[in-house]
Amino acid sequence: MFRTIDWSGGAVVMLDQTRLPAEVIYRRYERAEEVAEAIRSMVIRGAPAIGVAAAMGIALGMKEAGGSSMVDLERRMENLSKVFAATRPTAVNLFWAINRMRRTFESTRGLTPAGAVAALEKEALLIRDEDLEINRRMGRHGEPLIPESARVLTHCNAGALATAGYGTALGVIRAAVEKGKKVRVLADETRPFLQGARLTAWELAQDGIDVTLITDNAAGHFMSRGEVDLAIVGADRIATNGDVANKIGTYSVAVLARESSIPFYVAAPLSTIDLSLASGVEIPIEERDPEEVKRAGTTRVAPEEVTARHPAFDVTPARFVTAIITEAGVAKAPYEKSLKALFEGSS
Amino acid sequence: MFRTIDWSGGAVVMLDQTRLPAEVIYRRYERAEEVAEAIRSMVIRGAPAIGVAAAMGIALGMKEAGGSSMVDLERRMENLSKVFAATRPTAVNLFWAINRMRRTFESTRGLTPAGAVAALEKEALLIRDEDLEINRRMGRHGEPLIPESARVLTHCNAGALATAGYGTALGVIRAAVEKGKKVRVLADETRPFLQGARLTAWELAQDGIDVTLITDNAAGHFMSRGEVDLAIVGADRIATNGDVANKIGTYSVAVLARESSIPFYVAAPLSTIDLSLASGVEIPIEERDPEEVKRAGTTRVAPEEVTARHPAFDVTPARFVTAIITEAGVAKAPYEKSLKALFEGSS
Repeated sequence: MFRTIDWSGGAVVMLDQTRLPAEVIYRRYERAEEVAEAIRSMVIRGAPAIGVAAAMGIALGMKEAGGSSMVDLERRMENLSKVFAATRPTAVNLFWAINRMRRTFESTRGLTPAGAVAALEKEALLIRDEDLEINRRMGRHGEPLIPESARVLTHCNAGALATAGYGTALGVIRAAVEKGKKVRVLADETRPFLQGARLTAWELAQDGIDVTLITDNAAGHFMSRGEVDLAIVGADRIATNGDVANKIGTYSVAVLARESSIPFYVAAPLSTIDLSLASGVEIPIEERDPEEVKRAGTTRVAPEEVTARHPAFDVTPARFVTAIITEAGVAKAPYEKSLKALFEGSS
Repeated sequence: MFRTIDWSGGAVVMLDQTRLPAEVIYRRYERAEEVAEAIRSMVIRGAPAIGVAAAMGIALGMKEAGGSSMVDLERRMENLSKVFAATRPTAVNLFWAINRMRRTFESTRGLTPAGAVAALEKEALLIRDEDLEINRRMGRHGEPLIPESARVLTHCNAGALATAGYGTALGVIRAAVEKGKKVRVLADETRPFLQGARLTAWELAQDGIDVTLITDNAAGHFMSRGEVDLAIVGADRIATNGDVANKIGTYSVAVLARESSIPFYVAAPLSTIDLSLASGVEIPIEERDPEEVKRAGTTRVAPEEVTARHPAFDVTPARFVTAIITEAGVAKAPYEKSLKALFEGSS
């Protein structure tokens, strides 16, 4: 079984997701800036995995400066927080992980620099281990929503590769398969980065779960023909009203699902819910390099002189979301109330 | 200016659309079977262009057998009709063109074999010339639907490359530009064959029309953000109730347009309307090689062992279609009545 991200011998090790499925290459990073660049260039992606990577990157960066004074470490913590916060703007788990590492550092004021560094390394590993456990709990909560025999559409990759392991949306699918349910997955390829074709298809095939690949623009066709029983996706940020930011194309899946009266589920940890935002219009949408749209695989497909636009995420209004599955339970509309109740129940 | 398809020195010449935009290569075919293979492999595509190609292919095939008796020619006509009818099942213009060539052949009964062959060549060229004129008329009818300043979304390629020239949906855009309107086009890339990225972006850029390329799954995002004023597409077959078969993904565009209260127009010649079909459920949907989905450009992007599905078209129910623009005028719901009136007006 592959490992998405690991801490090994004082370095961060990641499975390079830009090279899958053609090559399974693990990259070893010994410097925090390399980890930040790996997040930016999508060697690792997926909101929970980005959170884990940022936590490990900060732990690594603090270790690099291990011999310094606490004052120096404090300055370095400020700097590392800024570096990682600037990598990708949409996934809130990134900021959640950075804040958790900052709070941990603040709690080490009485310790030596070496003690503080050790505490940060421990916290990063805890975030990783917790994420895996959170996904398994999410799977247990979400599994009852999957019929005994189900054709499930998913978009992008919300799997083991997007998390510390098991996955959010794909974790719910895995939990249903473990219960003996007959699940067939229809995976949107998810242009331009092709997370569906390259990552979801790959990790489900590794697990022997039935998966069929389609282009993003075929999802509506299969839904309209009665060939999909439910749709389930992950999330990069959820506002308190239940609006969901997720990979570009998620909004289309949600609208098309409602048109065909198909349930549309979102699976995400509580750390994806941004309690500071009233609605999805406030979520910053990352626009990535348009060149990524003008390429398919390694081939340049559009004329040189043509402009392209590449919003990496979109926002699905809460009215399209049948339920949000978290580690603390399943929330339904009205989300202001149900999401709040999950936080209260989990604390 | 490029030529999509031409008849030159007793051969059919086509611009190879599988190689655009990287290479501008004209292919010369001297045998009918080569023309049929060019249609199957999408060297030429687009419903009206396929019709022209089939007509020219039949003229070529009859010329090959020119020295035969009329009885032999009759047998050959039967055979050529079958060969071309089997190339691609969805675009009805193909069958319309084949039938027109058959009727022309039947009208040559009093002629010599050479006279019949000459009449067929003349008819194929007439179909080509008429298509160009039809597109210009369609442009004149559709142009008033485009606001003075308009951001127009289109899907696939319904342009000069999909016709004998000028285009259907892109013909309407060209007519608006010729009127001095400020039109900015948002082109869906249209996976897996990437007609939007490779063909629409290329031909609009050639004409100096403002075009921005997006992935198919970003169309909904831009519509929801108020960045699209109208959507316009071509069609491969239209049923008498106004249901529209067109490139896979068209249905999604239509549903998303309605969700954002954006007009959704279809531009197609009367030869695309199949009066034998009451509704779109009867339209055969071509499923192409799944390998085309597992590749992006020349790169294999999905794991070897994963299954894919590749419906090449979908059906948009008439209730999503704001208007159908033809060479005989603009039809609105109820389409049973309005489409019939256009046929009566044009005859």
